[in-house]
Amino acid sequence: MPAVRVGSLVFTAGQLPLADGELLAVGHVGADVTVERGQECARMCAVNALAAASTVCDLDEVVRAVKLVAYVASAPGFIAQPLVVDHASEVLVVAYGERGRHAREAVGVAELPKGAPVELSIVLELGR
Amino acid sequence: MPAVRVGSLVFTAGQLPLADGELLAVGHVGADVTVERGQECARMCAVNALAAASTVCDLDEVVRAVKLVAYVASAPGFIAQPLVVDHASEVLVVAYGERGRHAREAVGVAELPKGAPVELSIVLELGR
Amino acid sequence: MPAVRVGSLVFTAGQLPLADGELLAVGHVGADVTVERGQECARMCAVNALAAASTVCDLDEVVRAVKLVAYVASAPGFIAQPLVVDHASEVLVVAYGERGRHAREAVGVAELPKGAPVELSIVLELGR
Repeated sequence: MPAVRVGSLVFTAGQLPLADGELLAVGHVGADVTVERGQECARMCAVNALAAASTVCDLDEVVRAVKLVAYVASAPGFIAQPLVVDHASEVLVVAYGERGRHAREAVGVAELPKGAPVELSIVLELGR
Repeated sequence: MPAVRVGSLVFTAGQLPLADGELLAVGHVGADVTVERGQECARMCAVNALAAASTVCDLDEVVRAVKLVAYVASAPGFIAQPLVVDHASEVLVVAYGERGRHAREAVGVAELPKGAPVELSIVLELGR
Repeated sequence: MPAVRVGSLVFTAGQLPLADGELLAVGHVGADVTVERGQECARMCAVNALAAASTVCDLDEVVRAVKLVAYVASAPGFIAQPLVVDHASEVLVVAYGERGRHAREAVGVAELPKGAPVELSIVLELGR
């Protein structure tokens, strides 16, 4: 499922930086993918996460973003995951203002599905 | 704790592919562990996750699966984590039908406890 | 945000082993960071997670710890993540006794922000 609603919470699936079914980039940030390209991927993942959430709620119902968990496929020695993931966080803040601010974890992983440089999921709270 | 119940949600701990206290396989998928063996591990992890949940609820109370987070110990270049984790998702669908479908994230990590090829946790919703 | 409160749950952001703005260690457990140093980092992360939670609730309101997700930057072949993360779990048990016990996942990842050896987040339940 792209997302599941349970009570006032929406949990999305992990989202890849897909646009029209194609990954924006393939590889590891810090090696074959630049930070700038990784940031673009992070933004696309966040947009896709909102689209996933919209399959189970009206995005107007969102009263706040709760959590964002982001995995960055990271080359050895690449430790600037927050710099990449900040661009996903910004998407939520642009969409919801202060209520878009969230608790976040950003980690560097070995490999992601299809060779994606970024994968992320979000948790949103809905109003009643 | 194998699992914690909070309100109508059950959060399990990360589960390893243990059967009778022994891992079904050790190593990285895409290197010393085949995809087929990884899938078998994923199924066992999912079974163990339901067993963990059963320590804090009756599994008949489950009204839906919410989330599955799966980590696959991945050899360099192994990017078919979803192919492995699909077999864990199937366990939930076999157990609960459509209500077993869930939001999922599947990532490839460097190392897992005891050398396990797969670790996963689930979130379930209980009826009242 | 260091933490977000939603209903009776508190979700913290991923915490690094920072003390006075400095990481206690940098590198991968099993290579440039010993298990003992990793354990010290895990304890500091847990203390920081409670501090993060305290920005959105009174820590006396906590009726139980729910979940702890811990990432250990792991050298190839390092598979004793639980040995490291046990020291974070202990912090919650020292703080809250039996109610501090929680469902946990511990995984070994490639790289963490700033080169931290450990990152973790927690979910807490609050009383009414």
